[in-house]
Amino acid sequence: MRVVDIIQKKRENQVLTEDEIRFLLENYQIGKVPDYQIASFLMTVYFNGMNTEELKVFTKTMIDSGETIDFPGVEKFLIDKHSTGGVGDKTTIALAPIFGALGMGTAKLSGKGLGHTGGTIDKFESIKGFRFSNSKEELIKIVNETGTGLMGQAESIVPLDKKLYALRDVTATVSSIPLIASSIMSKKLAVHADAIILDVKVGSGAFMKNIDEARELATTMYKLGRAFDRNIVCILTNMDEPLGNAVGNSLEVVEAIETLKGNGPKDFTYLVEVLGAQALILKGDIKTLEEGIERVKEVIKNGDALMMLKKFIKGSGGDPNVCDDYSLLNIATETLEYSVEESGYIKHIDAEKIGKAAMMLGAGRATKDDVIDHSVGIIMQKKVGDRFEKGEILLTLYHQNNMRDEIIETLDGAFVFSQEKVEKIPTILDIIG
Amino acid sequence: MRVVDIIQKKRENQVLTEDEIRFLLENYQIGKVPDYQIASFLMTVYFNGMNTEELKVFTKTMIDSGETIDFPGVEKFLIDKHSTGGVGDKTTIALAPIFGALGMGTAKLSGKGLGHTGGTIDKFESIKGFRFSNSKEELIKIVNETGTGLMGQAESIVPLDKKLYALRDVTATVSSIPLIASSIMSKKLAVHADAIILDVKVGSGAFMKNIDEARELATTMYKLGRAFDRNIVCILTNMDEPLGNAVGNSLEVVEAIETLKGNGPKDFTYLVEVLGAQALILKGDIKTLEEGIERVKEVIKNGDALMMLKKFIKGSGGDPNVCDDYSLLNIATETLEYSVEESGYIKHIDAEKIGKAAMMLGAGRATKDDVIDHSVGIIMQKKVGDRFEKGEILLTLYHQNNMRDEIIETLDGAFVFSQEKVEKIPTILDIIG
Repeated sequence: MRVVDIIQKKRENQVLTEDEIRFLLENYQIGKVPDYQIASFLMTVYFNGMNTEELKVFTKTMIDSGETIDFPGVEKFLIDKHSTGGVGDKTTIALAPIFGALGMGTAKLSGKGLGHTGGTIDKFESIKGFRFSNSKEELIKIVNETGTGLMGQAESIVPLDKKLYALRDVTATVSSIPLIASSIMSKKLAVHADAIILDVKVGSGAFMKNIDEARELATTMYKLGRAFDRNIVCILTNMDEPLGNAVGNSLEVVEAIETLKGNGPKDFTYLVEVLGAQALILKGDIKTLEEGIERVKEVIKNGDALMMLKKFIKGSGGDPNVCDDYSLLNIATETLEYSVEESGYIKHIDAEKIGKAAMMLGAGRATKDDVIDHSVGIIMQKKVGDRFEKGEILLTLYHQNNMRDEIIETLDGAFVFSQEKVEKIPTILDIIG
Repeated sequence: MRVVDIIQKKRENQVLTEDEIRFLLENYQIGKVPDYQIASFLMTVYFNGMNTEELKVFTKTMIDSGETIDFPGVEKFLIDKHSTGGVGDKTTIALAPIFGALGMGTAKLSGKGLGHTGGTIDKFESIKGFRFSNSKEELIKIVNETGTGLMGQAESIVPLDKKLYALRDVTATVSSIPLIASSIMSKKLAVHADAIILDVKVGSGAFMKNIDEARELATTMYKLGRAFDRNIVCILTNMDEPLGNAVGNSLEVVEAIETLKGNGPKDFTYLVEVLGAQALILKGDIKTLEEGIERVKEVIKNGDALMMLKKFIKGSGGDPNVCDDYSLLNIATETLEYSVEESGYIKHIDAEKIGKAAMMLGAGRATKDDVIDHSVGIIMQKKVGDRFEKGEILLTLYHQNNMRDEIIETLDGAFVFSQEKVEKIPTILDIIG
């Protein structure tokens, strides 16, 4: 078997065999196939794709490149809820305790943020003393106690994905649907969970800018999950404006806590309710979304979900009083209120630009090695469809005296206004599964 | 400027700027852009191509990567006739002396053979003592005296092509029309000639297997030549069977000499006449192909062309008596006559398989470092359209007692027979320019 023949076969849009895919990837992992041949192969995949069978083998080979994790001591129904990443996405902080309050559990790998999107790890680390589970034993213990088990991305899980992703990043092959699907799904499938919920973000602040691409990705991941006999649902959700109002680590923690107190922004609250309901459907407890949403509302109303979050924070070395006293969080005291010299309706927000502005304030990383500032960020006072008068505050920047013109310029470019009334964007765009 | 953005731009089928192409290639040449990014880029070019303007810049950058050669002391009208390679292609051996006899000259780089196709250098080296010009001075001297100046591929000419070709070879990006065109044309354009004649071979023994691809390549190279203000013509010629009857170095030299004596095979003789006529048209001496063919026939008939070949052989250190006494050539004395147990018409010959059989005998190289045997080869007794009776010789193998079953199996797979009469294939398929 020659690598060049495998590349050529895919280039000619033929279906690769299991042996060919394994030969290519396994030898790449051990350094016997050079980067330049894989770079070329990845570009053929960008153009010609892979069918479900090829993608299954590709993903299985990725999984087999490292360890897999299961949780033998956990009795709870385990959900792995994963988001493809967006701006203001603090979903896990609110949702994991809800799962816990509903008698289910979360056991998943969480990422650090890069670019305009934040990571769950960074957000939780806004809480002083907080640290993630370092070992499987610790994780199992905390899942049993609180329903929430989050680990940082382990080096031992799908190491081939790290190697491939680094290559894709510099060879313009990141945005290939089958490669994205196998990258995400290999990490989901390598960690045992009873059900997988994929939140595929769509819009200006997401990796998938349009609904068709997002639906293709979601469908591809759904099929892949089913090909591995997993219980899975994919939900397409709006990222054409930031999720909720808060962007930035401490600010998002506050918003997630407020949501568990019943005071969350409408869009974020509804997303959390729907995702919670989907988990109950996957578990088989209920049949309809409406029933599920009621169950979520219940555990918010009766305080069970907030209690679970407090338990989780305490179990992770943080101070649970943070939930009642936000002054325990590090939040920037310098603020700048952003408004414009006109009035109208907000027609469109470029969420990526909002995320970028937050990153420039220090809330995110431009490169992997950047140190982030948990205290800074943005609160959106107005969102798409909202009316505003001349000089009315559209958003507030929380900063550490590091305002720069380019941040304001980024914000200026983020808004499109209209004189006509504008419809709000629905939070949930589609459900596949 | 970032390499990944340039790759992405081409991936999205946008037109690259001169700066982008130069940035990519120049930094690749000096090792600042790694192979894996160029591999990825080349695959985008395979899928999305390049327009004439991009290709011009790409080719110019290739040319600029090394030295260019001109011939200030040569008064003759210089032709660079280049073939894309085929089986039994001894055209230069007969054609260069014809150019010389017609008062024109040849100044070109010649290649060594690899795989199923032979190289002009190897063929001439069948002649004892023969050696190619080592310096430009030597080349100019021999062009002035004999009209023929051939040099081996110089390391200093388009070094970037060697680097790119080595990468294309292992990344399944060899068969990209713009990349083939720029590879061939950069080497043509780096060496001064008053006119370029490209003989694009089409068929089973050629790199281009079908006429549409071949026409696309020819048109691309023609446009590229014109974009550099060169006097150029591209001729599509048949390679759906070996050219002439002889395949193998010494055997092909004999056939070329016989052609200059007026005894050449019909197809090869006609090709040489048309190419000679095209040179006269490019020079402006004549208007029609018919006139040109008459002029070529004349210099064959009056012995001028043969005399020029003798002069060239003598000037290159060989014995010109080889033209009258073929025993001075090293020709294998062991022969095997190949026939089949049926009768009919030859419908199709897989010329690549004939070339491969000759290579297996020792006439060609499977890898770059193989040493070739000038004495061995194949003489075709029958070609497409010919009638043969049961047991009649189809071809004769000249070998050095190294016959193997696999050679015969290769030949068995090379012929398709028919009971119906079959038309001969035309030698010239199209002329572009």
